[in-house]
Amino acid sequence: MKNLKGACMFGQSGGPTSVINSSAAGVFIEALKQENITAVYGAAHGIRGILEEKFYDISKEDMKELELLKYTPSSALGSVRYKLKDIKVDDTDYKRLLEVFKKYDIRYFFYNGGNDSMDTCNKISKFMKSSGWDCNVIGVPKTIDNDLYGTDHCPGYGSAAKYISTTLMEINLDAKVYDTGLVAVVEIMGRNAGWLTAAAALAGVKGLGADLIYLPETPFEMDKFLSDVKNVCAKNNNKCIACVSEGIKNPEGKYVGEFSASSTDLFGHAQLGGIASILASAVNEELGIKTRAIEFSLMQRCGAHLASKTDVDEAFMAGSSAVKFACEGETDKLVIFKCDRTNGYKCEFVLMPLELAANTEKKIPAEWITNNGTGLSQEFIDYALPLIQGDAKAPLEDGLPRFAKLKKVFAKI
Amino acid sequence: MKNLKGACMFGQSGGPTSVINSSAAGVFIEALKQENITAVYGAAHGIRGILEEKFYDISKEDMKELELLKYTPSSALGSVRYKLKDIKVDDTDYKRLLEVFKKYDIRYFFYNGGNDSMDTCNKISKFMKSSGWDCNVIGVPKTIDNDLYGTDHCPGYGSAAKYISTTLMEINLDAKVYDTGLVAVVEIMGRNAGWLTAAAALAGVKGLGADLIYLPETPFEMDKFLSDVKNVCAKNNNKCIACVSEGIKNPEGKYVGEFSASSTDLFGHAQLGGIASILASAVNEELGIKTRAIEFSLMQRCGAHLASKTDVDEAFMAGSSAVKFACEGETDKLVIFKCDRTNGYKCEFVLMPLELAANTEKKIPAEWITNNGTGLSQEFIDYALPLIQGDAKAPLEDGLPRFAKLKKVFAKI
Repeated sequence: MKNLKGACMFGQSGGPTSVINSSAAGVFIEALKQENITAVYGAAHGIRGILEEKFYDISKEDMKELELLKYTPSSALGSVRYKLKDIKVDDTDYKRLLEVFKKYDIRYFFYNGGNDSMDTCNKISKFMKSSGWDCNVIGVPKTIDNDLYGTDHCPGYGSAAKYISTTLMEINLDAKVYDTGLVAVVEIMGRNAGWLTAAAALAGVKGLGADLIYLPETPFEMDKFLSDVKNVCAKNNNKCIACVSEGIKNPEGKYVGEFSASSTDLFGHAQLGGIASILASAVNEELGIKTRAIEFSLMQRCGAHLASKTDVDEAFMAGSSAVKFACEGETDKLVIFKCDRTNGYKCEFVLMPLELAANTEKKIPAEWITNNGTGLSQEFIDYALPLIQGDAKAPLEDGLPRFAKLKKVFAKI
Repeated sequence: MKNLKGACMFGQSGGPTSVINSSAAGVFIEALKQENITAVYGAAHGIRGILEEKFYDISKEDMKELELLKYTPSSALGSVRYKLKDIKVDDTDYKRLLEVFKKYDIRYFFYNGGNDSMDTCNKISKFMKSSGWDCNVIGVPKTIDNDLYGTDHCPGYGSAAKYISTTLMEINLDAKVYDTGLVAVVEIMGRNAGWLTAAAALAGVKGLGADLIYLPETPFEMDKFLSDVKNVCAKNNNKCIACVSEGIKNPEGKYVGEFSASSTDLFGHAQLGGIASILASAVNEELGIKTRAIEFSLMQRCGAHLASKTDVDEAFMAGSSAVKFACEGETDKLVIFKCDRTNGYKCEFVLMPLELAANTEKKIPAEWITNNGTGLSQEFIDYALPLIQGDAKAPLEDGLPRFAKLKKVFAKI
């Protein structure tokens, strides 16, 4: 579908990251340049904004603020978790989308998100095609979880990995400052794939990493965990730093965190709270060593002050490439990253059919998990280290980040 | 006591901060320059290192690494929480200290810490004097809590305040990203003084602060808290960010956090965990809104990647001033900050008698607490904003901070 002329719509979906707005900047700045794009819209809260006809006219924004989006965390347009129904069961939403697309002459649609969002993007693409509405649809990848199939890595992951590894180095220095014992248990995001938690291993490159790392890819056994901690403590003056994915599962495949909702967990420890506090309490009860439970919580995904320049730049390029590809006539695809690390690090932006991305999860290769399930191999370090290079953050104003301020003028026809 | 000639000893004490090593750099670099200082020692784990004759010969360190100490969080020499006994009850430690001071000809003693550490420093100073051992003793202030009496502010506070305000801005953007309700409860350090939690108000300068701030200075009532949250949610699409000091106390003066150790707290909510999770659970139960409990944990005190340049520079100057003052013959004093904000911000380093600093806590003035106990006045902003200015962090190596690496060669005689 070459030479389409009309408006473009961009939406942000799923959990925020430090660089999802950098992709938005890439889409907007490139789209505003393209001759065949007659209007640039940003959907308020993703797909819901389109359904409700709530989207912003991006031509009304100052270029300076669009540039600052590169360094502004979270989703500036608002995000959403909205699952389109199976079209055979209920096609109401699809028809409404088509109505809005026609009303605003939307000929380019860009959607930024992870697995679920690419499923949405794929469904919309297929429906527009089957309805005969010419519209080039390109997905822009995003997820701190780094679990999107087909791409070398995902925008958002590098910055989260940089937050995790840098902060862990600082915690390592802090937790080991006294001459008394301390076991710190650090809980890191990632329900099914351990990429984020694995980033703790990057801090090890500087000698300030975790002693033990537990990923969702490896079944978690409390007895082994306690014995691992005991061994580290014995060698290390009762000091140990364990990083644990929120998604660790017991050998039966149940999330360890699920037990925390009841007053007693499966291991017999009375608990309420996150996995870090479950495990820290277990260590304290069983080994009698002082513990501290730490959660990186929202900070790991929105800590844009610690963003990776590589990640910020790639996220921007993912957005601008999506627009360029669409304007060249590509559709029904996702922008993915093809990387070469043989002679320095190079990243190329290419396309993959959308349906391949939808709802597939990429996990850490088993051969990268070492040390009886508590460590990561050099292959992982070589893979991840290039992704956290460089600093890129918002300029300071009053000693605080100057984030983008959008006017958010609703588009009207 | 002018013109003393001999060795100097420096120790770090109490909880680590982002800039306690910057003061160490100030002491070491200045002491190595002074003609009257014949050797520069750094005590391993504070006072305990002196008692056990474990201290490092700083002349063996590379100047480049001493410079990097400025940007290295935590206490590079190791810290300690060790309380000297009342000399009338047990003078063993004091005699041992004198023995070590004589053996190594220690004529200059610098101790870096907060209230308790200055008490230790004061006791040592008085004992050396009464024993006839000429030794100039100068305290170097440190505490993220900012509760040291007599000084405008404390090294460590500015960087912690910058971490708290910057991170809160990011969390604010993240927590408000969906079009559904969310109450985020953020727990911030400070057992008795609310300076750290108050720093959340700085984020408000950029429009991304907390809706509600609860300090230990104001008695905490659960009913009022829930009603405050309800009011904010009603006005704000069920979104609310509340920052709470770990040291909030009920009207009877008991820590709210103390209740968390039992299975049911005083408010009737079954709980285990920090204050953020107690309050988040209460909101969820009472108001039925989704909540998220966030703890800034160790990150707020060791997040040197987000240090304030003003703080780093002042911490360094506090250390180097201590050495200069001692070499000019001053003793039995603490370096304090005298600041002028009338025409821009100026900070002067002056001295105060050590006994005034020992064990006194400075709290937030009542008139700076506004909005029925949930906000801070412009006076607080004017006070704190100059302290978070500028960035100063370790250079990057492999995309990660290059912290100081000391050789730590034990001194021997």
